[in-house]
Amino acid sequence: VDEFDLIDRLIAPLATAPGAQGLGNDGATIAPGPGCELVITKDMMAEDVHFLADDPPDLIARKLLRVNLSDLAAMGARPLGYLLGLSSDGRRDETWFRAFCKGLQQDQEQFDVSLLGGDTIASPKGVLTLSLTAFGEVPVGHSLSRSAVQPDDLVAVTGTIGDAALGLRAIRGELAELDESKRMFLSDRYRLPQPRTVLGPALVGLAHAALDVSDGLIADAGHLASRSRLAVNLDWTRIPLSDAGRTALNRDSGLKSVVLGGGDDYELLFTFAPANLDQVEAVAFECGVTVTVIGTCAIGAGAHVFAPDGQEIGLQEDGWRHKS
Amino acid sequence: VDEFDLIDRLIAPLATAPGAQGLGNDGATIAPGPGCELVITKDMMAEDVHFLADDPPDLIARKLLRVNLSDLAAMGARPLGYLLGLSSDGRRDETWFRAFCKGLQQDQEQFDVSLLGGDTIASPKGVLTLSLTAFGEVPVGHSLSRSAVQPDDLVAVTGTIGDAALGLRAIRGELAELDESKRMFLSDRYRLPQPRTVLGPALVGLAHAALDVSDGLIADAGHLASRSRLAVNLDWTRIPLSDAGRTALNRDSGLKSVVLGGGDDYELLFTFAPANLDQVEAVAFECGVTVTVIGTCAIGAGAHVFAPDGQEIGLQEDGWRHKS
Repeated sequence: VDEFDLIDRLIAPLATAPGAQGLGNDGATIAPGPGCELVITKDMMAEDVHFLADDPPDLIARKLLRVNLSDLAAMGARPLGYLLGLSSDGRRDETWFRAFCKGLQQDQEQFDVSLLGGDTIASPKGVLTLSLTAFGEVPVGHSLSRSAVQPDDLVAVTGTIGDAALGLRAIRGELAELDESKRMFLSDRYRLPQPRTVLGPALVGLAHAALDVSDGLIADAGHLASRSRLAVNLDWTRIPLSDAGRTALNRDSGLKSVVLGGGDDYELLFTFAPANLDQVEAVAFECGVTVTVIGTCAIGAGAHVFAPDGQEIGLQEDGWRHKS
Repeated sequence: VDEFDLIDRLIAPLATAPGAQGLGNDGATIAPGPGCELVITKDMMAEDVHFLADDPPDLIARKLLRVNLSDLAAMGARPLGYLLGLSSDGRRDETWFRAFCKGLQQDQEQFDVSLLGGDTIASPKGVLTLSLTAFGEVPVGHSLSRSAVQPDDLVAVTGTIGDAALGLRAIRGELAELDESKRMFLSDRYRLPQPRTVLGPALVGLAHAALDVSDGLIADAGHLASRSRLAVNLDWTRIPLSDAGRTALNRDSGLKSVVLGGGDDYELLFTFAPANLDQVEAVAFECGVTVTVIGTCAIGAGAHVFAPDGQEIGLQEDGWRHKS
């Protein structure tokens, strides 16, 4: 009971939206703005799978929120709020929960969202398991979809690719040949994704299809291809890499499969008509997000990555399965 | 991976609403009807806390959905759909998941809701942990609240009270003095709540305040009292009991505290102006739900239960804490 009261006390100040009703009712209320509908998404995270027991609690909280905000962005939705589910094994103290809630508060301010409600349960035989449902709004019927790729579309991606998967290796003690600042950069990219919450909504009406890169670039390009029944062809040399990522790759070309197959980047992968290229670049500039055209779509099937010599690059390992 | 594919395959047919987008995108879309807003609620359930490993999987699924639908009903919202989160420890086979999904399907038909999306994760060191977010609609600004009790309101409750808590005792092998049919009735009431999804929305504009009885009658009446800053006074003799509940109580008057303090009934407890009594009874009749007036509200504080001699009945044990 003490732990519940503690969590309640720490969580209450996060419920800033009127619809949260001070967390005093059986549920919350939410309505999309005029001409809009809601986009809803739910991602779970469990200890020892999605985070480790000694990870900083504020980063666990912020990653949980951000992976959901990234799903909203991929659908073109502006974030509004979220419900939090927390199943506790009772092995954490007040300091831990205080840091966890501080992380949520920090990101609530950054992304202008409010806690709306949720549930806390005790599960002594389980592990800490988190569930978050995020709510956003998008003009009715205009949410971005994986199945709306058009033949001849250009394919673009935000930010840089592969950092998160390389960061996970750095956290595990690999990539020791990189200097510490590069390893830190990569591990931060794994621990704290940057959901493209401003660009996503700005792509509504401009992009044809979109998703966020959570399963890995090849796997996610494959989702676009299979859902749209077209081929997505990417140029290896155009895939944007960070300095740290490029350095790692220069030292070990075998990491190519990590870059192409690793997940958790939470960048947007989207397609649009070539005629809209200038506008896409202008919108990306306004949003302060780097966008790189990395390929084209065509009649056909599957996602393919080509080397400069025109040879297709095969993946040495599959992107890990990671639902999002 | 096999388990994920299995779950995906079994869950896919449940996503019947267009907004679920065939579970093919990063999220789903939902919009309240004209003049309405959404009510959202999230309840979690974990093995060994809210259900046991050998409980029938279809009943686990249906209870998970129904406790959430009950929250919607308590807010006066008509149910629309839900997101499902499932954290699996990998110890269940296809038969189990098939039965689980069949339970969901059965209740989807009964309550006219659709799966909209969700997330499945593997958590080998955890226990099966379920999270469900339910969505309903209510006329804008008219959701029922715990804080809207008026002095002189009548207090009413649906169905019968105490069955679930007695049922949990029956499941644990207690109440052996009851015949098997009564023990079965009570344990069914624990395992499969009957959310008042038709009456709840019908009470909008008619009831002042409402919640569902999940923490126990006294505790939940206390929630109405504290949130509304009034007193809620109940007559013990008017509290509706089932035949089985009355029989158990006649044999052991000590079970009174179980009836008053035990939770999980998922009946609606609501208040309304005395002038509306006839209309409340007519609406309840139309909805096929028994409604019993069990008390009155007044200037004051707290929830109180009185015996026929006017003495207040104290609880011998607290209602267990059970977030909902």
